[in-house]
Amino acid sequence: MAILVVGSVAFDSIETPHGKVDHCLGGAATHFALAASYFTDVRVIAVVGEDFLPKHEAVFTAQGIDTAGIERAPGLSFHWTGAYAGNLSEAQTLGTDLNVFERFEPKIPEAYTDSEYLFLANIDPVLQARVRSHMPKVRMVCGDTMNYWIKDHAANLAAVLRELDVLLINDGEARMLSGETNPVRAAEKVLAMGPKSLVVKHGEYGATGFFGEHSFGGRAVPRPFRAPALPLAEVVDPTGAGDSFAGGFYGYIASQPELTPAVFRKAMFYGGVMGSFACERFGTERLQAVTSGEIEARFALFREISHLDSAI
Amino acid sequence: MAILVVGSVAFDSIETPHGKVDHCLGGAATHFALAASYFTDVRVIAVVGEDFLPKHEAVFTAQGIDTAGIERAPGLSFHWTGAYAGNLSEAQTLGTDLNVFERFEPKIPEAYTDSEYLFLANIDPVLQARVRSHMPKVRMVCGDTMNYWIKDHAANLAAVLRELDVLLINDGEARMLSGETNPVRAAEKVLAMGPKSLVVKHGEYGATGFFGEHSFGGRAVPRPFRAPALPLAEVVDPTGAGDSFAGGFYGYIASQPELTPAVFRKAMFYGGVMGSFACERFGTERLQAVTSGEIEARFALFREISHLDSAI
Repeated sequence: MAILVVGSVAFDSIETPHGKVDHCLGGAATHFALAASYFTDVRVIAVVGEDFLPKHEAVFTAQGIDTAGIERAPGLSFHWTGAYAGNLSEAQTLGTDLNVFERFEPKIPEAYTDSEYLFLANIDPVLQARVRSHMPKVRMVCGDTMNYWIKDHAANLAAVLRELDVLLINDGEARMLSGETNPVRAAEKVLAMGPKSLVVKHGEYGATGFFGEHSFGGRAVPRPFRAPALPLAEVVDPTGAGDSFAGGFYGYIASQPELTPAVFRKAMFYGGVMGSFACERFGTERLQAVTSGEIEARFALFREISHLDSAI
Repeated sequence: MAILVVGSVAFDSIETPHGKVDHCLGGAATHFALAASYFTDVRVIAVVGEDFLPKHEAVFTAQGIDTAGIERAPGLSFHWTGAYAGNLSEAQTLGTDLNVFERFEPKIPEAYTDSEYLFLANIDPVLQARVRSHMPKVRMVCGDTMNYWIKDHAANLAAVLRELDVLLINDGEARMLSGETNPVRAAEKVLAMGPKSLVVKHGEYGATGFFGEHSFGGRAVPRPFRAPALPLAEVVDPTGAGDSFAGGFYGYIASQPELTPAVFRKAMFYGGVMGSFACERFGTERLQAVTSGEIEARFALFREISHLDSAI
């Protein structure tokens, strides 16, 4: 089933202990779309500037991603400059040039309105809500957000959260959104805000999913599921790892007939798999080149490093 | 098979957001011994003062723990004062009164010399090495250490590491010991210092084990195994959780005929199980009262929250 993703398509200038790249293709919607494209059809709504060239569009189309919703506007594309030090667990933002993204007004192509799966990447919750409202036939809505919207746009974000099937955020965002330091109470509070299910990402420590109680037949407190991350000897560039996690997670869900607890668990493993690939090269380089065979082999490795009956 | 543990038996005064206790029974050897006692016979070498009363000894003997090696010395027992705030992930030490522990000279009762499993809890590596040297018949040696010994007693610690079968440390200690921020390269460097296997504890995120290459038939880089931690809605007091992890881990290993990769994986789960119980009450309260049925039920829960074929 097709996923429609709305979010940023951007250029990133990144420095890590492994090197430096200037204006490589990036953005949440880009990483998400590439990761999800290995599982299902993907359509993208975004805005780019005149610096977005045919070779950049080809990164999407080579994976069969529908780019009809990528709007061209006069000016330059969104450009993020960041650096990582130490164990690369946190990015230091050195510059955010919104450029054409500043006046982003998502426009949904007619051909996209039958999309059954919607992913609201990290953008202004007002825009997230607007896209959601134009997709009355959507079957499932999954979304992301960040500290900036949690802190200063709480009411707008609350309206989006009420309509989400799955919210994907990281530890810090879960703490900020809930006001709770305890991860279980934080999850309970976030789920009470509307999302049927929640995935909290822990970076190098994997992720914890809380599958909605509705699907468990009214269980009051969703039981957590913990998916590992793969310990990597070389994290070249973690930019986009969280969006790649979301792409693997949601792409797998959209490829399945329905969202059961078993599908949710496998989706969390596929999220970790795609996130781990994303870290291996700068920008989208690794996600462009990964094969289905490599994805399945890594899924098997994730199982091996976390299951008691592992073959090793 | 009997485990001999050498380490601290102490009193702790602890404050957490859930309350405050004064002079409750604590110490690494205490938490370790209680956790391990559910799996195998345990013998303790430690020194205590005149404030260590029959009711304190009864905490050990009620679990069948052999206390013949707990030496009484004039003066007061080791007393630690600490506090936790926020998400209780890090203790703030407010006071360390070594008291009788300052001149601790481990003495090994004759009846203990046939112990096949030795656990060197976090004490001066000179004492760890001395105990090790008096146990020529020991089959397996597992140990812990801390930042203080890594930083200022490196040569003494190196001698201990060379003789270890398993080293259990946390993330910060692994980084400090190896000088590496990347967890895989840190593990490789630590393993090159001598330990055949390594377990790195991540607190609320579980633990990663690196099972020695010898046991995998010469594989150059040990493959990691990731065990989850249980997300707890109430962490009352995390003091001793790491030692309880070690007790569950090593207690299970000592109860098995040999250390295979499968035993190592289950041991990591039992470590997490005992660590999770330890956090539920102040001091040793929960570890004193847990039942075998509760331990097996929680082991099953750890499996459920981490395995793809979970029943939930």
